[in-house]
Amino acid sequence: MANPTGDIGLIGLAVMGQNLILNMNDKGFNVIAYNRTTSKVDDFLANEAKGTKVQGAHSIEELVSKLRKPRKIILLVKAGPAVDSFMHQLQPYLEHGDIIIDGGNSYYPDSIRRTKELESKGLLFVGSGVSGGEEGARHGPSLMPGGSPAAWPAIKEIFQSTAAQVNGEPCCDWVGETGAGHYVKMVHNGIEYGDMQLIAEAYDILKRGLGLRAEEIADIFLQWNNGVLDSFLIDITANILKFKDDDGEPLVDKILDQAGQKGTGKWTAIAALDAGTAVTLIGEAVFARCLSAIKEERTRASRVIAGPQKEPFRGDKKQFIDDLEQALYASKIISYAQGFMLMRETAKELKWTLNYAGIARMWRGGCIIKSVFLGDITAAYQKTPNLESLLFDDFFNKAVHKAQSGWRRVIAQAVLWGIPTPAFSTALAFFDGYRSEIVPANLIQAQRDYFGAHTFRVLPEKETAKLKKDQDIHINWTGRGGNVSASTYIA
Amino acid sequence: MANPTGDIGLIGLAVMGQNLILNMNDKGFNVIAYNRTTSKVDDFLANEAKGTKVQGAHSIEELVSKLRKPRKIILLVKAGPAVDSFMHQLQPYLEHGDIIIDGGNSYYPDSIRRTKELESKGLLFVGSGVSGGEEGARHGPSLMPGGSPAAWPAIKEIFQSTAAQVNGEPCCDWVGETGAGHYVKMVHNGIEYGDMQLIAEAYDILKRGLGLRAEEIADIFLQWNNGVLDSFLIDITANILKFKDDDGEPLVDKILDQAGQKGTGKWTAIAALDAGTAVTLIGEAVFARCLSAIKEERTRASRVIAGPQKEPFRGDKKQFIDDLEQALYASKIISYAQGFMLMRETAKELKWTLNYAGIARMWRGGCIIKSVFLGDITAAYQKTPNLESLLFDDFFNKAVHKAQSGWRRVIAQAVLWGIPTPAFSTALAFFDGYRSEIVPANLIQAQRDYFGAHTFRVLPEKETAKLKKDQDIHINWTGRGGNVSASTYIA
Repeated sequence: MANPTGDIGLIGLAVMGQNLILNMNDKGFNVIAYNRTTSKVDDFLANEAKGTKVQGAHSIEELVSKLRKPRKIILLVKAGPAVDSFMHQLQPYLEHGDIIIDGGNSYYPDSIRRTKELESKGLLFVGSGVSGGEEGARHGPSLMPGGSPAAWPAIKEIFQSTAAQVNGEPCCDWVGETGAGHYVKMVHNGIEYGDMQLIAEAYDILKRGLGLRAEEIADIFLQWNNGVLDSFLIDITANILKFKDDDGEPLVDKILDQAGQKGTGKWTAIAALDAGTAVTLIGEAVFARCLSAIKEERTRASRVIAGPQKEPFRGDKKQFIDDLEQALYASKIISYAQGFMLMRETAKELKWTLNYAGIARMWRGGCIIKSVFLGDITAAYQKTPNLESLLFDDFFNKAVHKAQSGWRRVIAQAVLWGIPTPAFSTALAFFDGYRSEIVPANLIQAQRDYFGAHTFRVLPEKETAKLKKDQDIHINWTGRGGNVSASTYIA
Repeated sequence: MANPTGDIGLIGLAVMGQNLILNMNDKGFNVIAYNRTTSKVDDFLANEAKGTKVQGAHSIEELVSKLRKPRKIILLVKAGPAVDSFMHQLQPYLEHGDIIIDGGNSYYPDSIRRTKELESKGLLFVGSGVSGGEEGARHGPSLMPGGSPAAWPAIKEIFQSTAAQVNGEPCCDWVGETGAGHYVKMVHNGIEYGDMQLIAEAYDILKRGLGLRAEEIADIFLQWNNGVLDSFLIDITANILKFKDDDGEPLVDKILDQAGQKGTGKWTAIAALDAGTAVTLIGEAVFARCLSAIKEERTRASRVIAGPQKEPFRGDKKQFIDDLEQALYASKIISYAQGFMLMRETAKELKWTLNYAGIARMWRGGCIIKSVFLGDITAAYQKTPNLESLLFDDFFNKAVHKAQSGWRRVIAQAVLWGIPTPAFSTALAFFDGYRSEIVPANLIQAQRDYFGAHTFRVLPEKETAKLKKDQDIHINWTGRGGNVSASTYIA
């Protein structure tokens, strides 16, 4: 057999897989395409891939035989057992140093496990986030590879060439060890849930609060897209709001208000709870989709539960719309600050070394949350690689300060109107809690000690001879209970 | 050997176990006490249990030999492997129909597993929530037993006698199958997190917003405790706020504002995410504790992030405090509505038959969340056993209506003041979303279809020849992408 010429193999010829192959082919790489139902290989070669250098394979063995060493094979198959199945099918044909790349939406603990499994056999594993949907896959996605560090030099050129480019920089860099690539992709998706929820709340306020029509709202989003909110999601929101059905009515007004979800937002919220990190905005965004899903129950509730008397808006509309832009911007800053806080805590726990500036750069283009804003985050982490929080960065600190009063006015108004703003509100609550030296958790600790002897500590500046700082103290609040502290039990 | 006389055995002589034994002894039951470190058995008999009918056992075998059949053994040991370990140690000595009861804070999936495991061996399992802390265990806890239904007739008398009594009714009834007892206990604990957070927010508003001192705030809580908020947690809050340190200063003002948690609130939030149910208030309460925990980061943030200009309050203080009572009450209604919604969804999924009136009755006394309010919930579910939501019940519907304007005024004011109210705010956002026939999720579905071909549906009343209701529709929004819907992949 002739020397193999394939630079990379790809398994899974759904839309994403096909588009990624065509993209890599455009960038000059020889791609070998394989699919379990092999007729799909022939269809693809005869149609979408016609006239390209893409070659097909009709078996795993053939696929591997056509690849140069170290072999690189990307799986773009459904996350879960299918990934393990192909990993097992591939292994007999692979040699030391070959690389299996999982480009699906895998749950990061699976990628941690798979890295260890392949490395124990002398193979290398990469779990890579791939974002940008069909369009991104075809013309330049955001790629977030992590896993076996030894794999990076071998795949770097293909990955960085295939990824989206912003100002000549690829939206792809090495993320970190074991499951870091899929972890960062998960956080990306959670942030995407948050961004979409924030936009939906702004839309709702403009629609139900100010009574604007879809076309008018589109113009506002178009204008915002020239400012600090400049981003893919704001852009497509304007396009969506302008899109007319055949009868000339805005299509968006006809769409059922039940949002679906595929689970990565939920994963992020659960990861946040597990890490003990207050990623409240993504949590609220996920729950808002859950609430949207019970449409029939909401409809019944709307018949029997009245809201506040609706007063027409009497203020300055222009000013209010500017305030709303600031509310959206400030809430977005909080959401990203929370997301980066989550990555920081997880990296600490799992001993990953994450390059935060690199992550922001990867998200700057190619993916759903791409935005000018992410350039500003990149800059913040480039300036201060160990930045404690975005809110400590000068640029964002000033931005939030500027936004603050409008943000508050918008929420207060929405609360009086009866328009739900779970994401705006939780962002502000986090902001006000985060900047509070004293929060009311002293009372919660007192309650816990009162009913469950869970102990409390004293403020260092309030230390007394009896109440020593850094000691767990239990007080007999009632004179009835014992002085024993709870150890294993909580009520 | 003489005929055994023990009615029930108890393993685990920490405070909770000791108190529960003394309580059961008071009610006339013969309890056999055992502990792994057997010197604790002797200590207990020589001290706390002196003069009672309590007998000790120095081995598992002795414990079992002293029990009448069917034998009933309660474990009050640390949740996790210790429970399985004692279950395995007990089994060789047990006979068909004997009952092992886990009274610890076990995670409900473990109780589902343990029920199946014991039943497969002809034994019976009960996983029982036990709430009320040391005090409750000693004088009447709330008991929430679930598991093998065949065990209930055998333990009913002991459990219902030992539990707290409210108006002559025991705060204990059979909860449901397999893990239902621990599930309901978990939701109870989640609701407890919510109640405590709501009280903390009211306290914070009175303290930082109105500038009141601890003693003044105590008087307000005392007054509230005579109204709709009448409950254990409001009562102890007043006591805590009145509690003076030796120097005459309120002790609460010296307590470090870092709240601990043992995980059951987190479990509830995760269960809610898994069930796809918008239990937002418990989620925010858990995250508020997480935020409280990063005290040092908050302190640094407080130095560099300014809030709004603090304006002295110019309104009617008395009216505002009444509004605050209504805000707390309305938010609490939402939290319980969310909690019951979660139990409903989980029961549906796991095919449990839950007695919602019974659950509310169990929580009415003996436990941390005990309140007059839970009597009203009991009444609501007694009137309408399949009540869709508390908000559909006349009593609560009217209560929320009455509370609504004050609730909104309080949140709007807190937002302008810069005092965080994550739980008040999320409760209101849920309320306003729940009573909205149309939420802005139509835009989210349009976005998902735009960038990921995830499809949408149309509002039934907007159906057209091309846009059929109940069909998954994908539109080519840009004229560029394909018409293929996404199946396995989401960006």
